[in-house]
Amino acid sequence: MSQRALSVSRMTGNRSSFAQWYQAVVREADMAEPSPVRGAMVIKPWGYGVWEEMQRDLDRRIKETGHENAYFPLFIPLSFVAKEAEHVEGFAKEMAVVTHHRLKNIDGKLVPDPDAKLEEPYIVRPTSETIIGDSFSRWIKSHRDLPMLINQWANVVRWELRPRLFLRTTEFLWQEGHTAHATAKEALEETMKMLEVYRAFSEDTLALPVIAGEKPANERFPGAVSTFSIEGMMQDGKALQAGTSHFLGTHFAEAQNIRFQNDAGELTYCNTTSWGLSTRMIGGVIMTHGDDDGLRLPPAVAPRQVVIVPMLRDKPEDAAVLEFVEGLASALKTERVFDERLRVLVDKRATKSADKRWNWVRRGAPLIVEIGPRDAASGTVTFLRRDVLRDGDKIRSHALPRDEFVAKVPAMLVEMQANLFRQAKARLDANIKTDVRTFEALAAYFGAGVDEEESGEFRGWVRAPWSKPGGAELDAIDARLKTLKLTLRNAPLDQPATFGPCIFTGKPGVEEVLISRAY
Amino acid sequence: MSQRALSVSRMTGNRSSFAQWYQAVVREADMAEPSPVRGAMVIKPWGYGVWEEMQRDLDRRIKETGHENAYFPLFIPLSFVAKEAEHVEGFAKEMAVVTHHRLKNIDGKLVPDPDAKLEEPYIVRPTSETIIGDSFSRWIKSHRDLPMLINQWANVVRWELRPRLFLRTTEFLWQEGHTAHATAKEALEETMKMLEVYRAFSEDTLALPVIAGEKPANERFPGAVSTFSIEGMMQDGKALQAGTSHFLGTHFAEAQNIRFQNDAGELTYCNTTSWGLSTRMIGGVIMTHGDDDGLRLPPAVAPRQVVIVPMLRDKPEDAAVLEFVEGLASALKTERVFDERLRVLVDKRATKSADKRWNWVRRGAPLIVEIGPRDAASGTVTFLRRDVLRDGDKIRSHALPRDEFVAKVPAMLVEMQANLFRQAKARLDANIKTDVRTFEALAAYFGAGVDEEESGEFRGWVRAPWSKPGGAELDAIDARLKTLKLTLRNAPLDQPATFGPCIFTGKPGVEEVLISRAY
Repeated sequence: MSQRALSVSRMTGNRSSFAQWYQAVVREADMAEPSPVRGAMVIKPWGYGVWEEMQRDLDRRIKETGHENAYFPLFIPLSFVAKEAEHVEGFAKEMAVVTHHRLKNIDGKLVPDPDAKLEEPYIVRPTSETIIGDSFSRWIKSHRDLPMLINQWANVVRWELRPRLFLRTTEFLWQEGHTAHATAKEALEETMKMLEVYRAFSEDTLALPVIAGEKPANERFPGAVSTFSIEGMMQDGKALQAGTSHFLGTHFAEAQNIRFQNDAGELTYCNTTSWGLSTRMIGGVIMTHGDDDGLRLPPAVAPRQVVIVPMLRDKPEDAAVLEFVEGLASALKTERVFDERLRVLVDKRATKSADKRWNWVRRGAPLIVEIGPRDAASGTVTFLRRDVLRDGDKIRSHALPRDEFVAKVPAMLVEMQANLFRQAKARLDANIKTDVRTFEALAAYFGAGVDEEESGEFRGWVRAPWSKPGGAELDAIDARLKTLKLTLRNAPLDQPATFGPCIFTGKPGVEEVLISRAY
Repeated sequence: MSQRALSVSRMTGNRSSFAQWYQAVVREADMAEPSPVRGAMVIKPWGYGVWEEMQRDLDRRIKETGHENAYFPLFIPLSFVAKEAEHVEGFAKEMAVVTHHRLKNIDGKLVPDPDAKLEEPYIVRPTSETIIGDSFSRWIKSHRDLPMLINQWANVVRWELRPRLFLRTTEFLWQEGHTAHATAKEALEETMKMLEVYRAFSEDTLALPVIAGEKPANERFPGAVSTFSIEGMMQDGKALQAGTSHFLGTHFAEAQNIRFQNDAGELTYCNTTSWGLSTRMIGGVIMTHGDDDGLRLPPAVAPRQVVIVPMLRDKPEDAAVLEFVEGLASALKTERVFDERLRVLVDKRATKSADKRWNWVRRGAPLIVEIGPRDAASGTVTFLRRDVLRDGDKIRSHALPRDEFVAKVPAMLVEMQANLFRQAKARLDANIKTDVRTFEALAAYFGAGVDEEESGEFRGWVRAPWSKPGGAELDAIDARLKTLKLTLRNAPLDQPATFGPCIFTGKPGVEEVLISRAY
């Protein structure tokens, strides 16, 4: 069969079809859906299951590096935000504002009660530097209280004018780390350590290859001394910033009076960091691994790694099929992979087994097993591998004796995880162009004047030397890039020893930087 | 030493000292603290660690009973709430209202931008029946989609005028289950199943004995056909409602148009349920197990079950102590208890070891190990058991050879868990008075006219038959009880075969009900 499980293909046609394909996967893989709250999404059980697996793995990495979880208020007093706005340039003001604490029925209509107007409005946290900093200013007294290493799993709200499920939503879920240190050196080490945690999480757990590097000054988190990111390449060639780690110097500590008594007994400002990774990463997983049959989930974060569909026909043979299936599931559940028990589901929903198969294909379950009366009778397991679903257009089905299948599942899942990473890594490596040397060449390469939403060409990224200008010179470059819908992504940590001339200024280059279209 | 680790005793003096004792434990056990946001708390790492263990255990129970987690928007359109208010009597209106989506600097002051006023205000969810019901109305089409079994872990906001850490906070964390079923019978079965999950979680995991039963009509969740609760007895004799499970009939389904096509092809309203358990339960753990030395944590939810304090003196012997301590920690970490790896911490903070010991005593770590040079040299482990910390006034210290200690730790923790439950169960069982037969006797027993905040008497609960009146008659009883600061808690599931006359009306009793002061 040449028909695919999805209603939209990601590759054919123009770029806007990639956006449609993305929407189709999110919808048809039961990941999320729009909600009646503008820009906010409902994360459906399968999508939330992926997030739970991501959380579990990343949480372990965060704790192994010495951090503890805590929880801080959802609301932030407006005065905190106002103080930050004084200290921080480029401070974003799109936030949800709570102004009343009661509803009242007035003339038959439920409205905010005018008598319950807050003296000071609250902001729904867009990020928690200020409210966590307030605690730090009380918790930290001496150098013995340092380093302070805190992480929070939370929902945050940023008003989005052009929302897109997972990628840009008014409310999203994330973890935000906040740490305080005695010295700038230690704080910068922490910033880099967490960047590496994100890289390893992305590549090892999500099979999503990234380039870690420092953001240029115009892309820094407002108030940060330096911002680092991991950037992944999506299947349309665009970059997705998938996690950021900020060295904040003493900027936030000064605004919030986070001080400690050093060895010499002097009160000194702490150096702080913050770092975050969100449900946006789920969008990255979809755009990295999805295909025209839907989602392909990395086995390490698949809520169910093996799904067994019994082919029932309301006939006497059903009993033998169910017995075989239950035995198979029990045997699989004793196996382990990625240092966890195998996650196995028997799908007994009262729908047609072919519908169930396609549902699990679209959802991206790694191994999909179908058991009919003949399989049960012969002790055979017939299955699909989601990473290599087809031979050309034809579905590729495998069969193994039951015990052999059970024994091989963990190794197959490990191989699938590696396979997904290999495919994505090959795409990333092959699509970073390094021979574009001038802005004109850049414009020509990315198709100046062509509406990128309409252009079907896969362009990937350009990596070029630059002179790392700041101030007005950087702003001008940024503006020129914007005309091509391009942005500076980051300067990879991994840099050569010498550099050609700057692609923008012609001056001697001091580092290489990635340039691309981005989410 | 007769001095206790806490600054306040829970038992001496009057009842208000119990409240002070509670505050002292929350503070001195590093569980939580007030925040700059009125009524909202900061949950500190140790307190949040307890919540994480509680979540992990309860989440497993929720999933084992067939539910899936998902995530729904924090904000609820005002129109949803208005619709519910039309359907539901006694609907609470204390809610945080979001009215603007941007801040603006006007005359040098950051204020809600008048141009960014929302057309329709949003409510910050106080509970999610309406927003989840909206999804259900789209997800449920036929009987094949039922039962729909969804759970959400989330933060919710209810404006509290008299906040108290964990017990009553403007923002709190909880799980809320929402399910839809084809029949009332199935929905009621679900309601009772989850009540039993809460009972088992409370008793087995938190060592917190409870009485499960049905709330009287005046204490029902607005809109529920019936509400069930588990009630725990705190050490001041008051009841704490620790979890609730609601059978909602078709009330919410009708308001939200949650319908399915039944076997006969007819569109029929679903029967729904909801059930929730929150961070309030942490307050219950504190008030059930705490003592005058601070918190005593049930080992099953202690973030660290064994804390090892090396007694370091900046001397050469320190190396041997640290080596012994690290070896001990490694050996312990390979052991398992409550079906999980042992949670072990070596406390290397640069503070005095005596301060560390008392800090862990106050925090309620189950086993506190102190290792000095002599212990390291002789291979001995000296430790405190937090459940039996003292012999009279004296601290009781134990010593075991290293390997014996390691081997015995899991059994000791299991025994401590059982011991905490036994103590609390004995208190509960001994303090439910069943021989109070009239309202006058009730008033006399609880001390009519005596301000309960001042009364130091431990009264516990009264269990008495009643005629289960409704309407105005019930309201009158409720009002009379309020004069004594008493409330009807629940009618225990476990009921005798016959009943004496109603304690309120003198009419024939139809069930027994619990009456007490409560949080």
